[in-house]
Amino acid sequence: MTSSFTHRHIGPQADEQAEMLKAIGYESLDQLMDAAIPESIRFHGALDLPAGAGEEETIAELRAIAGRNTLVTPMIGLGYYGTHTPAVIKRNVLENPAWYTAYTPYQPEISQGRLEALLNFQTVVTDLTGLTTANASMLDEATAVAEAMTLARRASKVKSLVYAVDADTFPQTLAVLRTRAEPLGIQVELVDLDTEQLPEEYFGLHLQYPGASGAVRDHAALIEAAHAKGALVTVAADLLALTLLRAPGEIGADIAAGTTQRFGVPLGFGGPHAGYLAVRGGLERSLPGRLVGVSKDADGAPAYRLALQTREQHIRREKATSNICTAQVLLAVMASMYAVYHGPAGLRAIAKRVHDHALTLAGSLTAAGIEVAHRAFFDTVTAVVPSRAEQIVAAAAANGVDLRLVDADRVSISTDETTTAAHVETVLAAFGATVAEPAVCGAKALARTSDYLHHPVFNTHHSETGMLRYLRKLSDRDYALDRGMIPLGSCTMKLNATTEMEAVTWPEFANIHPFAPASRTEGYESLVGQLEAWLAEITGYDAVSVQPNAGSQGELAGLLAIRGYHRSRGELHRDVCLIPSSAHGTNAASAVMAGMRVVVVACDENGNVDLTDLAAKIEKHRDALSAIMVTYPSTHGVYETGIAELCERVHEAGGQVYVDGANLNALVGFAKPGKFGADVSHLNLHKTFCIPHGGGGPGVGPVAVRAHLADFLPGNPLEPGDHHAVSAAAHGSAGILPISWAYVRMMGPDGLAQATATAVLAANYVAARLREHYPVLYAGEHGLVAHECILDLRPITKATGVSVDDVAKRLIDYGFHAPTMSFPVAGTLMVEPTESEDLAELDRFCDAMIAIKGEIDQVAAGVWPRDDNPLANAPHTASAVAADEWSHPYPRSVAGFPEGVDRTAKYWPPVRRIDGAYGDRNLVCSCPSPEAFES
Amino acid sequence: MTSSFTHRHIGPQADEQAEMLKAIGYESLDQLMDAAIPESIRFHGALDLPAGAGEEETIAELRAIAGRNTLVTPMIGLGYYGTHTPAVIKRNVLENPAWYTAYTPYQPEISQGRLEALLNFQTVVTDLTGLTTANASMLDEATAVAEAMTLARRASKVKSLVYAVDADTFPQTLAVLRTRAEPLGIQVELVDLDTEQLPEEYFGLHLQYPGASGAVRDHAALIEAAHAKGALVTVAADLLALTLLRAPGEIGADIAAGTTQRFGVPLGFGGPHAGYLAVRGGLERSLPGRLVGVSKDADGAPAYRLALQTREQHIRREKATSNICTAQVLLAVMASMYAVYHGPAGLRAIAKRVHDHALTLAGSLTAAGIEVAHRAFFDTVTAVVPSRAEQIVAAAAANGVDLRLVDADRVSISTDETTTAAHVETVLAAFGATVAEPAVCGAKALARTSDYLHHPVFNTHHSETGMLRYLRKLSDRDYALDRGMIPLGSCTMKLNATTEMEAVTWPEFANIHPFAPASRTEGYESLVGQLEAWLAEITGYDAVSVQPNAGSQGELAGLLAIRGYHRSRGELHRDVCLIPSSAHGTNAASAVMAGMRVVVVACDENGNVDLTDLAAKIEKHRDALSAIMVTYPSTHGVYETGIAELCERVHEAGGQVYVDGANLNALVGFAKPGKFGADVSHLNLHKTFCIPHGGGGPGVGPVAVRAHLADFLPGNPLEPGDHHAVSAAAHGSAGILPISWAYVRMMGPDGLAQATATAVLAANYVAARLREHYPVLYAGEHGLVAHECILDLRPITKATGVSVDDVAKRLIDYGFHAPTMSFPVAGTLMVEPTESEDLAELDRFCDAMIAIKGEIDQVAAGVWPRDDNPLANAPHTASAVAADEWSHPYPRSVAGFPEGVDRTAKYWPPVRRIDGAYGDRNLVCSCPSPEAFES
Repeated sequence: MTSSFTHRHIGPQADEQAEMLKAIGYESLDQLMDAAIPESIRFHGALDLPAGAGEEETIAELRAIAGRNTLVTPMIGLGYYGTHTPAVIKRNVLENPAWYTAYTPYQPEISQGRLEALLNFQTVVTDLTGLTTANASMLDEATAVAEAMTLARRASKVKSLVYAVDADTFPQTLAVLRTRAEPLGIQVELVDLDTEQLPEEYFGLHLQYPGASGAVRDHAALIEAAHAKGALVTVAADLLALTLLRAPGEIGADIAAGTTQRFGVPLGFGGPHAGYLAVRGGLERSLPGRLVGVSKDADGAPAYRLALQTREQHIRREKATSNICTAQVLLAVMASMYAVYHGPAGLRAIAKRVHDHALTLAGSLTAAGIEVAHRAFFDTVTAVVPSRAEQIVAAAAANGVDLRLVDADRVSISTDETTTAAHVETVLAAFGATVAEPAVCGAKALARTSDYLHHPVFNTHHSETGMLRYLRKLSDRDYALDRGMIPLGSCTMKLNATTEMEAVTWPEFANIHPFAPASRTEGYESLVGQLEAWLAEITGYDAVSVQPNAGSQGELAGLLAIRGYHRSRGELHRDVCLIPSSAHGTNAASAVMAGMRVVVVACDENGNVDLTDLAAKIEKHRDALSAIMVTYPSTHGVYETGIAELCERVHEAGGQVYVDGANLNALVGFAKPGKFGADVSHLNLHKTFCIPHGGGGPGVGPVAVRAHLADFLPGNPLEPGDHHAVSAAAHGSAGILPISWAYVRMMGPDGLAQATATAVLAANYVAARLREHYPVLYAGEHGLVAHECILDLRPITKATGVSVDDVAKRLIDYGFHAPTMSFPVAGTLMVEPTESEDLAELDRFCDAMIAIKGEIDQVAAGVWPRDDNPLANAPHTASAVAADEWSHPYPRSVAGFPEGVDRTAKYWPPVRRIDGAYGDRNLVCSCPSPEAFES
Repeated sequence: MTSSFTHRHIGPQADEQAEMLKAIGYESLDQLMDAAIPESIRFHGALDLPAGAGEEETIAELRAIAGRNTLVTPMIGLGYYGTHTPAVIKRNVLENPAWYTAYTPYQPEISQGRLEALLNFQTVVTDLTGLTTANASMLDEATAVAEAMTLARRASKVKSLVYAVDADTFPQTLAVLRTRAEPLGIQVELVDLDTEQLPEEYFGLHLQYPGASGAVRDHAALIEAAHAKGALVTVAADLLALTLLRAPGEIGADIAAGTTQRFGVPLGFGGPHAGYLAVRGGLERSLPGRLVGVSKDADGAPAYRLALQTREQHIRREKATSNICTAQVLLAVMASMYAVYHGPAGLRAIAKRVHDHALTLAGSLTAAGIEVAHRAFFDTVTAVVPSRAEQIVAAAAANGVDLRLVDADRVSISTDETTTAAHVETVLAAFGATVAEPAVCGAKALARTSDYLHHPVFNTHHSETGMLRYLRKLSDRDYALDRGMIPLGSCTMKLNATTEMEAVTWPEFANIHPFAPASRTEGYESLVGQLEAWLAEITGYDAVSVQPNAGSQGELAGLLAIRGYHRSRGELHRDVCLIPSSAHGTNAASAVMAGMRVVVVACDENGNVDLTDLAAKIEKHRDALSAIMVTYPSTHGVYETGIAELCERVHEAGGQVYVDGANLNALVGFAKPGKFGADVSHLNLHKTFCIPHGGGGPGVGPVAVRAHLADFLPGNPLEPGDHHAVSAAAHGSAGILPISWAYVRMMGPDGLAQATATAVLAANYVAARLREHYPVLYAGEHGLVAHECILDLRPITKATGVSVDDVAKRLIDYGFHAPTMSFPVAGTLMVEPTESEDLAELDRFCDAMIAIKGEIDQVAAGVWPRDDNPLANAPHTASAVAADEWSHPYPRSVAGFPEGVDRTAKYWPPVRRIDGAYGDRNLVCSCPSPEAFES
């Protein structure tokens, strides 16, 4: 019995599946899967999961779970604040598939909408922090701060490995800093700023502004002192506070880091939210993460694209400065639009209200004879209440307001955009106080005098009508799954079902503070526990943690677990990580971050790990062998038969096996990494488990381990101890876990297996249809690929000059997003159709690829010159195709309406091909002036 | 103090307002309004409404109200059934501004998406009913049945005024039939089908299929008998039942009517849902309401548009066959998509499950010794339980299931798509029964054998991915408020704010049965009561009813109130309704339906009601004078100064004054019709009070009256008595009332007045900017227009041949929806910018109109021929502009990218200008074959 939802999730219905099977010569999905998957790793039987539920039943269960979370007013602070998501942004971004089903903007010509939104985000961050360049975006504040630490280490000329850290830093940030510092040999030293005793030598200084206690300190002198020592200074700053307080850049900071959560992004029990990282001039090329920049297209018109790509992990591998890959695009878009909608005056007014409530609290507490720890604060007031803290927190909680219990003697209260006079009264009542005169602001000397957000985009769309149209205009520029197929190898762009998405924006999931007391979060805890158990069953592991908020963080967490395991056995010297040459660049970058040395293992001509070279490398590094990281099925899209032997050999040498779960969509229900030899994997819930890509994030990268590694999984960052927290919140991006929960709940064991088999069927169908036009690289037994296939363009490029890029851009003219380009093999396209595309769409794609081959043949035949043909000039904008003059050797109809394109429903890219290199040479990473767009 | 929302609703922010005021020579909004509105009608002071609340506060209040509705499982039936709205349809249609902010498809070139959806709707109806032609759509089942009655009266050659009606008809349908029959002199005679005693003579026969009791009867013989008498037969049929039962067309029906609610449209405490009406061949040109048909565009490509427009009320006025105007487009789209998503097999499976549950109920009741009234049924089982009915209904209610209490001895139970085995058990337990063998279906002889929904559109989009893309493709073809301004005179296309829309899809509002016991609906009752009171305060009337589910129904209800009032005073002879020549056609049609004779009053050269002619007409019809219907401000967009005098004169002659509230957006906060002389008005919540137009519905048309008419407002259709019910549900389309409630709640008295003043400012600003290019017809004192202005194209047309149509279509090329064409004056355009458009958008529109004037000048100068210029060829599709050959005397850039158009964000219409007449001559009103689209 499969649930009714299975047939909605899987694109090809039964008759279409039969047709596809026939085309590749199999009689049933079972027969195909028996042939495709090596018996040595095969899992037989059904997953031990509840049978698939219908959509309505699933929603009802989710409502019951949501009902076990208790909605109160959280005034806990520590980087997480109540905020009003403007309804127009919630509905038209967070709940709009045109935004949430988009992919990372690697094809910038069809991503101009979200690239503009991200450029706005960068402008918000640089304007408010007073720095030069910001990326878009980081995973949370804690990881942003950790990246700032390693950036400082790279950029500082001081030899010291000491990182001086403000003792008034958020505790979860400290936890993640420690996790990230230790493998790199960095020593985190806490500094009490009130006594101001800095270490003798240090390469960097981290300051929290305002501090966790709420204190707003003038850091200018400290920063000057640090600079005198040759150290770089990071300020973790609250962006809303910066609308009123002097900017980090104005007080000398080199780096600013933080979160943009309170710019309209729901709490979600910890995430997802967009972290930010900004740097002063001179450091921009060291900035990790994705950076949007302005360049120009083939007509010279301004156009956006990801800048400085060559510094990222997928290019630099183990030489990368960071392993960050997936960002928090959807949330960064929301935060940027919050700033667009409110504008500078609106943001300032919100900040003023927040601050005024805090002043009232402080003044009233003082009037009631209660000591307030600091005179200068923005939104957080710490009350000194010897031995009474627990009682006061409980009293407020009983009236629906959660405060922060700092310790037995202190209570912190954070005001936010949602705070009302009634909340202030409730808080005061818990202290036995009543409203009195507000305190006088003690931070006046730090009042901001500089301007910000003067760009027109922040001063135009202030009516809801205007905002709605701006959002529509931007989303219309982009191509997402709601328009057509995105056949991205290794990224599994499958259906993100509406029912999976619905619970995300329910208040009972959206408005829960990550540090809320356990009594408030029973629903979340139950959902997380169930999901972790289901993922363990699916993968065959013994324990799972959903804390990592991206695949990169899952990798790091998995490698840290291996590291912890070796250390626990006294094998500190094991630090070599074997990585096949075909691996995703993130693997190598993560290994370095986990303190390992990367040793590359060759692949044989069939694309498989070369077992001879493996044996040699193991032998060479036997004593130092820590782990091997492999992807399965391989990044070549093949079920390698040697996997069991590989695992055995590594284990025999004392190493651990890390199987990258990027390709788990080819295994679910048919093989379990935890059972066929692996010790640890990370999964990508935004690939296999239907969390939408959001235009480049959010993601969730759970780490799954066998029992011997379970003790080394990430711990709660708020609990003391050596726990390897990799995210700021215990359950990472908990707010989007209902998506994957709903997917597993609705598919059930049978549906999940059917999805896997259909994905493999679709890939083999595409391979079969395209093989005679483009060579398909690599295959497993019986000539079958797994869930994706690689089309080799190299002979074509050599013969005709037509490149992978040309084909990718020409696909836009045909109404498609390009497959993955030049990964894992340069000069190829990797196609992963997934189970969600129906036969008509698969055929539309194959037809387009075949038609493009026909165009390439025209170039080869000399009918069209190499530098002036539909491929070289692709993509064609409406403006170009309808130009008054037309000088190309092919007609306009071929340019704009190639074979198979519906003339009444054509997607037109807004710009022509973008010159990425130009933008890298002339780096511009904030909003260009409107004049730049005048033709 | 204005709420923060006011500044989101109103487009021009303070600085822009100042600029606009300067342009028209006023110093402040107050000064402008003092000049614009005659002091004689002016209301001074603030409306007695709660101060405007913020968006979050409003949502919180709505959640509290929603919480006072009790969610249970309604198995009450009577035309309203639980249904699962597919999540992908809910999110991407009902919650998607691209669908819900669209206007009626009067500009078909930019409405092809919703026209295709409506054609699908018509195909669903004709396929399932077995008839030839269906419209899209009716307001609810009861009004559809009433329209069928008058259609039968028109089409039947029998002289009789007797309408024979199945006694097993839904009671609310009967109530509305009686309301509608009485003024027309039609006698409704109930017929008990079990005894089959038909009247001697009758022009029509109405049958319910299945009956209200659940009984499925074979009507074939009765229909034959009726035909033999020359009568026409209407079958009110349940579309879901028709997937299993013989179709009305197959058993000889001439007309079918009903609702499509259970095709995925939420209950909403009664609406909005799309009613349907279908006829056999030969009756199509008598069919009232909007009818979508296939025609062709200038290239000969198939294209959709509203067919047979000339038979509608806005053309035929008092000769119209119906006053229906606004339909239920958004809900018809949803119902059609439900059929598209499920396909014929899916629908049949759903019907089968529903029927099986009913069989189980019947079998189990019988097994428990309880008599079941009928052997043949689809979904409704009536149990005969002498004296125990109340107790059983109470027992089920206590366990969360509401049944229908037919009378003291009978209980009806209706199963539906949401029914589960657990519900069946709960129901049986209330009877003291348990699950036993299902009954044997007694309707087997009526089993359907014919095919339906074989068109590809119903057999393609069955995966969620496919459905999502189909919805996106269709919505992308259309132009709605989310793209730009829709400056429609008299239709007030203002912001439909997200916060206003949010509550509509909450389960606590969406899933309430209209006939639920009062204890379940406290929230709704409180919301309705509050809204009616606020509307009374705003309009100055004493009582309001929100029952009419469109403006047309509000008009009818208002006129019936006047009729009832005269009758109550023994003045049965008063039947003349004066209507100015400038009136909306609906007014005249409604008057006829209310049993009145229409007498037209002339307008003077300034467009005002000619008071001399008025005096003459009053004198002539003094004794018979029933009412005058005027619009204020006038349909010419002018605050007529004579209104007070007009009211006085009519009153003096014993008549009542009906002020059409279509233009209330120019009055709110500044004048109250109920205070300046009117006795009754209808309002359009979908104009002034922000209910979105939904592409042509839903609407809500509350009727507001002074105290002396209060007794004659529409009553609850389920309560016995002479109560003039005009809708099937007591509160009409209650499900969308939270929208208007939220609007009033958020704007407050100050915000509402500001909105009015800004709307007047915007209209005068546009008039001022365009006056030198196009003469502005009509103005009030100080040369000011009210909230809209009329641009006179007649001299241009005379001089150049460029028509209103040409300008309207050319505006599409500039990225605009056209203003209202040729109403109220042929050859003109009427522009109502509303308060929600910011200055940039107003200027963009004015700039486009001025640029178009420049193009007209080129035609006038002979630069471009009259039959080949950018206006004559407008709109230009991408396909046309990018054609390989270009033979026009103007360049492609002028065609596709006229001045001011953003080349990166151009809206392209999917078809060229549509030949409406061709389609009327060759009427096709269901989905054309895919081959028709092959070029």
